[in-house]
Amino acid sequence: MLNRVRSAVAHLVSSGGAPSPRPKSPDLPNSPTPKSPSARPGNWSGAPAKTSEARARFSRPTFLQLSPGGLRRADDHAGRAVQSPPDTGRRLPWSTGYAEVINAGKSRHNEDQACCEVVYVEGRRNVTGASREPSSSQGLCFYYWGLFDGHAGGGAAEMASRLLHRHIREQLKDLVEILQDPLPPPLCLPSTQGTPSFSDSSHLVGPQSCWSPQKEVTHESLVVGAIENAFQFMDEQMAQERRGHQVEGGCCALVVVYLLGKMYVANAGDSRAIIVRNGEIIPMSREFTPETERQRLQLLGFLKPELLGSEFTHLEFPRRVQPKELGQKMLYRDQNMTGWAYKKIELEDLRFPLVCGEGKKARVMATIGVTRGLGDHNLKVCSSTLPIKPFLSCFPEVRVYDLTQYEHCPDDVLVLGTDGLWDVTNDCEVAATVDRVLSAYEPNDPSRYTALAQALVLGARGIPRDRGWRLPNNKLGSGDDISVFVIPLGGPGSYS
Amino acid sequence: MLNRVRSAVAHLVSSGGAPSPRPKSPDLPNSPTPKSPSARPGNWSGAPAKTSEARARFSRPTFLQLSPGGLRRADDHAGRAVQSPPDTGRRLPWSTGYAEVINAGKSRHNEDQACCEVVYVEGRRNVTGASREPSSSQGLCFYYWGLFDGHAGGGAAEMASRLLHRHIREQLKDLVEILQDPLPPPLCLPSTQGTPSFSDSSHLVGPQSCWSPQKEVTHESLVVGAIENAFQFMDEQMAQERRGHQVEGGCCALVVVYLLGKMYVANAGDSRAIIVRNGEIIPMSREFTPETERQRLQLLGFLKPELLGSEFTHLEFPRRVQPKELGQKMLYRDQNMTGWAYKKIELEDLRFPLVCGEGKKARVMATIGVTRGLGDHNLKVCSSTLPIKPFLSCFPEVRVYDLTQYEHCPDDVLVLGTDGLWDVTNDCEVAATVDRVLSAYEPNDPSRYTALAQALVLGARGIPRDRGWRLPNNKLGSGDDISVFVIPLGGPGSYS
Repeated sequence: MLNRVRSAVAHLVSSGGAPSPRPKSPDLPNSPTPKSPSARPGNWSGAPAKTSEARARFSRPTFLQLSPGGLRRADDHAGRAVQSPPDTGRRLPWSTGYAEVINAGKSRHNEDQACCEVVYVEGRRNVTGASREPSSSQGLCFYYWGLFDGHAGGGAAEMASRLLHRHIREQLKDLVEILQDPLPPPLCLPSTQGTPSFSDSSHLVGPQSCWSPQKEVTHESLVVGAIENAFQFMDEQMAQERRGHQVEGGCCALVVVYLLGKMYVANAGDSRAIIVRNGEIIPMSREFTPETERQRLQLLGFLKPELLGSEFTHLEFPRRVQPKELGQKMLYRDQNMTGWAYKKIELEDLRFPLVCGEGKKARVMATIGVTRGLGDHNLKVCSSTLPIKPFLSCFPEVRVYDLTQYEHCPDDVLVLGTDGLWDVTNDCEVAATVDRVLSAYEPNDPSRYTALAQALVLGARGIPRDRGWRLPNNKLGSGDDISVFVIPLGGPGSYS
Repeated sequence: MLNRVRSAVAHLVSSGGAPSPRPKSPDLPNSPTPKSPSARPGNWSGAPAKTSEARARFSRPTFLQLSPGGLRRADDHAGRAVQSPPDTGRRLPWSTGYAEVINAGKSRHNEDQACCEVVYVEGRRNVTGASREPSSSQGLCFYYWGLFDGHAGGGAAEMASRLLHRHIREQLKDLVEILQDPLPPPLCLPSTQGTPSFSDSSHLVGPQSCWSPQKEVTHESLVVGAIENAFQFMDEQMAQERRGHQVEGGCCALVVVYLLGKMYVANAGDSRAIIVRNGEIIPMSREFTPETERQRLQLLGFLKPELLGSEFTHLEFPRRVQPKELGQKMLYRDQNMTGWAYKKIELEDLRFPLVCGEGKKARVMATIGVTRGLGDHNLKVCSSTLPIKPFLSCFPEVRVYDLTQYEHCPDDVLVLGTDGLWDVTNDCEVAATVDRVLSAYEPNDPSRYTALAQALVLGARGIPRDRGWRLPNNKLGSGDDISVFVIPLGGPGSYS
């Protein structure tokens, strides 16, 4: 992410710009030994090869199948060649389109990472204690797409791209039986195997009083909870790993899980997902920035003033307050306000505002421009030891789209992009590109989604002209890393 | 509000169900002596008359112009006669329609209150220190409508109906010059009169650095801030008054301010405002309940566990956890989650959930079913000294509707209703009633909006049948107090 963390701060949290040691491959609790890629259906592991030092210094998604020469070209800030999986290779699941391009020089390597996998979840046996038909104890498959936009180093994004889907698998293991059972989820599970069945939730209801009604919990909300907790475990794992092996920086995470007919779109950060369906735009995420999360941040600063040190105030002012303005009235707003009012300036108001700036320049503690994501455990305020992590949330907002509720045509797509895309374009322009590119291809041509992803990346990058990357309207193109997934909504196998 | 506070709790906070002494008329800071009603344009003071003890024991809005006999009929739970301003009297501003009905017996008196006023704001002189044309120092008028739905006593609702608009006026006094100036609001005001002009905000910009951009603040956001702060001052005044004179209970507040071409709709509680415009529904508020504010409440409980005492847990469970379930896994969600997951039950999880129940039965601390509003300073958990007020917010959400952006016809209206209306109807049914009733009247008949308000109240109350108040579909009508304003969007004077 371009300029998301002030460069002065980046020095504090990365090892001077040099790549840090690769984080060790983590062991997930109760995780089975990973099978070899070919043993899993449709596996497109994002795990980097470990064959050469050059490869270890910067990695791209393995589904790009880059040769050492291709890897060098992908890392070339001058050429900024758009990268996609080769036509000749294995296609991504669902004929997903993907394209990426490196930044124009803001960081040494491309700090975006991507992952696209088909993940098999083997259920833990007899979780509910029920005696079931053999068929119901079969495992589950989910399709998974992830974009990870790193900042202040590429370590967190790379780690998340290799591991977050495994955390989701881990969270889903207990749910395999439950999700395949048409009955509502049991409220309570037995602590040990062999105890009486709890699969029928009506058995579980204890004495009810008027003030203790039983809430119905849906299968869908269990999947949402599993994804939310997987993000948290991923973030905790980064915290643990950093003690032994520096995990550089942090990353935004935008993840899609397709499971049992539904798309779960989970976003923590400022990437964005939209569905373009029959020309209509359906937003599938929102961005989490100092501006959109101002009131949450201010409330935390208000309730826990120790997190602000002596440097910051939880109040927002339209600009920095000057000492000579003490006693005058200035516009402000606090954690409860969306409007502005005047207050008399006091000594404490001379502190720096916890949240300041607008748009892409908005910052928390004058440092970071995004308020949700993974990592950033070492992030400190510039020239200070004040940690910023307490203000950041690793929890995504999850939106659910039921694929079975609509007859999708081959031109209906879910577009995921890092902020490198969205900084220079908008939903309507993307929808227009979807229409223009897909209509130029046969509906059953599986390469059309990659062509669309490439068109979106190229359209945001622009071409080199007048000492910069320029769009057709001569405005500056995005100098950031840009990564795009295009997922056709026709479902698995429809177009391949 | 029906059942919003458990009756056991109501005993704690009111003086045993008997009416408490009337709160003293508060003195607002710097508030001029109130002019007599006739001295202010279009005054419809909601202040109750003080002529008799009977009158002091329960009051209705003065714009209803109720005689002592009418007051008794309005207070009759058996008849539940619908009340509106008399046809023969002075019309409400903008030909606003109003109707109300008392509850079916859940509280002794109607705990809803209403206010409709035209308020003149005299500016404080030379606030900005500018030397201006005489015309710019003229005052401002705003139109004001308020619905206040009381619970656990009528004191807070009555106090708010008499005073909240005065707090808004007070907040606007400093802004009279600024709001009439086409220049952007000054960021900073001088502390004393006679200092150099600050009306041109470009003079105020101190040294700018890249991390301290100046934010542009709009006139609109100043009005929003004024309303937000007025709610807070109103709530603080209730806290102060309660020490000398018990202010019973609390109230939801739904307020509309029309100022300089814009409608500001401020809602704190579970009343609702919608615009019906050319058949289209535009929501102008959202409800604040334990369900919609669950994550805010849980976060507060998590960050300040002392607020939970030893009785409550910030975690939510689908039902009360039983001691025998210790060690088993139960569904839960915390302040970060929208989905559900399983957790192993520990001793602390046996505490009562901070938020529990669903729909109209949802409660904070097993007590209160609404999470924003005014008052409730004495509200305690049943059989405990644990205060609930820290979890309640007095801040409204303010939505702005620009009346100048659309050519309104006489059938376009803003409908405000307490939850007594919305518990048994919905936006679409209200829009259908709007269409049905207004089309039966001439467009220039000013009584049509009162007829519409009456139809809405009658439709929600139903008729007495089968030992209850029944709707035409034989479902139960609302047994709660019901109050409705219908504001035609054609603007002041258009239809009167």
